[in-house]
Amino acid sequence: MSILKRALALGVMATVVGSAGLACENKAAKEFAKSQNSGNLGASASVKQLMAARHLTESDVEAALKTFVPPGKRDEYMIFASGGQSGQILVMGVPSMRLLKVIGVFTPEPWQGYGYGGGSNKVLADGNQGKQAISWADVHHPNLSETNGDYDGQFLFVNDKANGRVAVVDLEDFSTKQIVANPLVGSDHGGAFVDPNTNYVIETSQYPTPLGRDYAPLSAYKDKYRGVAVFWKFDRQKKRIDPSQSFGVELPPYTQDLADAGKLGSDGWAFINSFNTELAIGGTLQGKPPIESGASQNDMDYLHIIDWKKAEALVKAGKAVTIKGMKVLPLAVSGAEGVLTLVGEPKSPHGCDVTPDGTAIVVGGKLDTHATVFEFSKIKQLIADKKYEGKDAYGIPILAFKEAIRGQVEIGLGPLHTVFDDKGNAYTSVFIESKVAKWSLKDMKLIEKLPVHYNIGHIMAAEGDTVSPDGKYVVAMNKMSIDRFTGVGPLYPQNFQLIDITGDKMRLLSDTPIGIGEPHYSQMIKIDKLHPRQTYAAGTNIYTGERDPNAVEGGKERIVRNGTTVDVYMTAIRSHFVPDQIEVNEGDTVNIHITSLETAEDTTHGFTINMHNIDLSLEPGKHENVTFVADTPGVFPMYCTEFCSALHLEMAGYVLVKPKGA
Amino acid sequence: MSILKRALALGVMATVVGSAGLACENKAAKEFAKSQNSGNLGASASVKQLMAARHLTESDVEAALKTFVPPGKRDEYMIFASGGQSGQILVMGVPSMRLLKVIGVFTPEPWQGYGYGGGSNKVLADGNQGKQAISWADVHHPNLSETNGDYDGQFLFVNDKANGRVAVVDLEDFSTKQIVANPLVGSDHGGAFVDPNTNYVIETSQYPTPLGRDYAPLSAYKDKYRGVAVFWKFDRQKKRIDPSQSFGVELPPYTQDLADAGKLGSDGWAFINSFNTELAIGGTLQGKPPIESGASQNDMDYLHIIDWKKAEALVKAGKAVTIKGMKVLPLAVSGAEGVLTLVGEPKSPHGCDVTPDGTAIVVGGKLDTHATVFEFSKIKQLIADKKYEGKDAYGIPILAFKEAIRGQVEIGLGPLHTVFDDKGNAYTSVFIESKVAKWSLKDMKLIEKLPVHYNIGHIMAAEGDTVSPDGKYVVAMNKMSIDRFTGVGPLYPQNFQLIDITGDKMRLLSDTPIGIGEPHYSQMIKIDKLHPRQTYAAGTNIYTGERDPNAVEGGKERIVRNGTTVDVYMTAIRSHFVPDQIEVNEGDTVNIHITSLETAEDTTHGFTINMHNIDLSLEPGKHENVTFVADTPGVFPMYCTEFCSALHLEMAGYVLVKPKGA
Repeated sequence: MSILKRALALGVMATVVGSAGLACENKAAKEFAKSQNSGNLGASASVKQLMAARHLTESDVEAALKTFVPPGKRDEYMIFASGGQSGQILVMGVPSMRLLKVIGVFTPEPWQGYGYGGGSNKVLADGNQGKQAISWADVHHPNLSETNGDYDGQFLFVNDKANGRVAVVDLEDFSTKQIVANPLVGSDHGGAFVDPNTNYVIETSQYPTPLGRDYAPLSAYKDKYRGVAVFWKFDRQKKRIDPSQSFGVELPPYTQDLADAGKLGSDGWAFINSFNTELAIGGTLQGKPPIESGASQNDMDYLHIIDWKKAEALVKAGKAVTIKGMKVLPLAVSGAEGVLTLVGEPKSPHGCDVTPDGTAIVVGGKLDTHATVFEFSKIKQLIADKKYEGKDAYGIPILAFKEAIRGQVEIGLGPLHTVFDDKGNAYTSVFIESKVAKWSLKDMKLIEKLPVHYNIGHIMAAEGDTVSPDGKYVVAMNKMSIDRFTGVGPLYPQNFQLIDITGDKMRLLSDTPIGIGEPHYSQMIKIDKLHPRQTYAAGTNIYTGERDPNAVEGGKERIVRNGTTVDVYMTAIRSHFVPDQIEVNEGDTVNIHITSLETAEDTTHGFTINMHNIDLSLEPGKHENVTFVADTPGVFPMYCTEFCSALHLEMAGYVLVKPKGA
Repeated sequence: MSILKRALALGVMATVVGSAGLACENKAAKEFAKSQNSGNLGASASVKQLMAARHLTESDVEAALKTFVPPGKRDEYMIFASGGQSGQILVMGVPSMRLLKVIGVFTPEPWQGYGYGGGSNKVLADGNQGKQAISWADVHHPNLSETNGDYDGQFLFVNDKANGRVAVVDLEDFSTKQIVANPLVGSDHGGAFVDPNTNYVIETSQYPTPLGRDYAPLSAYKDKYRGVAVFWKFDRQKKRIDPSQSFGVELPPYTQDLADAGKLGSDGWAFINSFNTELAIGGTLQGKPPIESGASQNDMDYLHIIDWKKAEALVKAGKAVTIKGMKVLPLAVSGAEGVLTLVGEPKSPHGCDVTPDGTAIVVGGKLDTHATVFEFSKIKQLIADKKYEGKDAYGIPILAFKEAIRGQVEIGLGPLHTVFDDKGNAYTSVFIESKVAKWSLKDMKLIEKLPVHYNIGHIMAAEGDTVSPDGKYVVAMNKMSIDRFTGVGPLYPQNFQLIDITGDKMRLLSDTPIGIGEPHYSQMIKIDKLHPRQTYAAGTNIYTGERDPNAVEGGKERIVRNGTTVDVYMTAIRSHFVPDQIEVNEGDTVNIHITSLETAEDTTHGFTINMHNIDLSLEPGKHENVTFVADTPGVFPMYCTEFCSALHLEMAGYVLVKPKGA
């Protein structure tokens, strides 16, 4: 009988009656057993009754009490999870796993007025590449900004695998402030990872293309196709990536995958794994093997080791070439100067994680059964000694696998991603087996395997990839949820499973469906590290962080016509707009400058004009500018889209577009 | 001491020891009290310990055990909530309140491949009005299809307040199949409500415009601006709205608000409330009162009563005029024929709810303190007898308020929306007081008021607006969440509060943040009424429901060139595409026809081509067609965006666009 079972059977009595109550306890236990058999649990609303009514086991009760956040109470941790194909970031609370916010990042998000006429339009437009506007992303790996290897709660970076882009989210207001488009790559994967002081945001290509994406036939794959690791310089003062100070490191066309930056003793280095070092390009229609088999021939792929401080110095010294406006350190330079070194890693890896102490890199091979631990000091020494096993076809030195590792731990089939706790343990997702493997980094021994449901991809732990993991929680990010949730049609949600890691044994606490895109990766930060603002200073343009030059004060609202341009200086306050009647002529260019005069938290207004695809969110103090051409004559109601007061429906007005000749 | 408190203090012992254990019970109780004072809860992992560790009260424990759905277990009910400005529908489980899916409806949703190149593009395009493509919505009131006044679990309808549109979601696969654009209105509000057999989907305008939205100055508001109630004919066989069989009923320019259809004895009738019967149009820049005060002058607004069966007959008899392609029954005809009748209703109403037995309509006035119950039989008799109090300026007959009501119940300031349980009780949201008021419909008496947090807008109950409510759960849909959740910046989530209504007293169970748009309205259906499919038949085009003429069989993949048009017949199966190399010339029109050959549930693939804003979701069996012009030469990886297997990263290929002259 488990401790909990006993406690439940006897209630808390056993813990309070002490030795004087033992006789009673035994009697009660017997009576309880009897009633259990008779199925009679009595009439009072006890825990036992609630359990019976909802068919809860003792384990369920424990999980319920460990995850329930009572009405009005706060969560302990916040998750920032990639929103996968949604293009967004999901913000969730732990342990409740409630979805607190979906941050619009790469995809227009109307609730936030993101991409519907205001200042955010430029953020999204900056992410376009070529002729086609891009209005979505395959968001993969969000990373929180770090100071000295610990989350500082200031910024979040995330990459778009589908279109090779990186976004900057400011955690002051949980909104996206910048998207930078990588001009070199067709897709990225190993991003957006930061170094321990967020000097750089690392973005590594996935599927090789000629750098710059110019045409070259697939027959030129080996010669002309390349990978690249871009180091985007982050300017903390300006709160933006500075492309002019950023650079790329050219890589061989081994399909680069995940990346991580060194920390503490390994700071200044980056590690990237790769698959398809076979250079398979498929050709299924011609009867050739698909990439999935072509890329799985070799037992080893290559872990890429980059000395990014040296790369930075070489770029500064003028050793880079410029491709499509970006400085790129050529492969030949990197190979010769020791910027890039390779070492074998187990087949088809998908996880490259530097340990909290910075001394090791853990790699999981999807077609392997081990967690492989590379020892950074050995790698560094081998490179310093130029002790290579050989060079690849591109002249890049290769270290001997056996000389570079601390060891390997057999954990099961399909290990992917590894996170850490505060007790020297590692937790690795094991995709094919659908398990979380807990193992000791110190002892290099498997401790426990917990089944998850199903096909876990990435895994996260509370601050589990910083220099000081918190332990406490692990979340399994499962790809399949076949029998876990109520049916919602053929497209199934993913399943986040919250796991308590405080005890000797891992304990599965809850399942959370994710029905809004497939999250790939996430981080979990302690709530007290975040200090978001509640309102904005009056008239703030959130993209400059300053008072907008067109901000409007109450009483100074006006409509100014200049030829066929109409500037409307407007305010919003519960529950009306000034002006609430805007009449323009067909063909006019209309600039609406609108300031929320609200100052109290949670007093958001919205602003829309029917049929114009304009939709703004005006949090307290915020200012927005929106321009449209009045090309359709007619009557168009405008209104506040937030239920801001009992008279919110009355917070409305009209835009009238007078037809030509009327 | 509450029953639960006592049960917790004594565990289940009190329920099992019977009279023989009474002495023990008393002793245990005393010991417990002592231990409580000393703070010593003992060492075992009991419920009490879990409570102490997480500062949970007895009430919290009860709430946790009533809401926790253990890993792998299913929810009892499903909520379909409007996604507000997100333009989408939120699907949630009850009692867990977990978000199961966000259904893409009016806004492109890339996870579902909704609006990114496939068949869904046409669904979204059909919702455009005029020159500007509209890519969002202000989703207000989802309604489930009904058969005999009960949810049948087949379809969901929802309206877009911002642009006057209605969408049809098929619950066979939880995807949006149709958007119809209302050519008459600038915005709608009273929709999408269905009659008890889903003959019609009702959509009522909100802010008046000239019907058809043509220009008329605001000075012509009284004469030329109008409201309209559109009855969209739903064809259950075709699973679509049939605009050709739909019609509108012209209404005076009283800002129409919410609507409901009669049921049982009141079937064939519709009820719509209104505000701003004062016809206020603002003019804030000119120093005139804003609409919020102009519209709040009169003590009464008008409940609109529509005999829609008569309207339908008159339209069939040729009494309608056609405006912008839609048949509209003119105001004069409706007034003269008894199709439209008015009756006073309390100031600024926002809730118009027919009782489960169909005998009454409950109205809440936002600036009033009552739930007002109109008696349908009285209304019907007054209309039959043509016993009017007078007529409005448009010749529409008005019934005497006192003769039309059953009575009023004083429930608090700011009543909005009313739902029902299975015991004859009503639950009304009280916005200004932030309360749920429970009152007896039979006794017309207030029973209880429960504080909610904060500013509740709409309210939902388990099947609470059908002919047979389930009781059990109520959800308060609160607009403000000031101090309820961890901060996520100046834009706060809304707060859904789950309330247990099975006991004598309402009991608040949980808070759920909604950080993805402001839901306005929702419905809650028993899980067993839903029968979604898990996969599609091979090659299904989900918009025709049939095998697509371009569906591809395994082994029959091919690339067919015809001049500058290239047709690619493609398949997807774990973990490769056939073909995986597509080479075209700059300027070619490329049609990709892609079929998923998967047959097992939850084996979804995605498909994207870098830089082309193409993104498809290929659930098992699904077929999609996507066309693009190869206008940018270069190398563009394509890949599967779902983590479909251990080799999902290898499920990739290339689109090569050869430059002109190369």
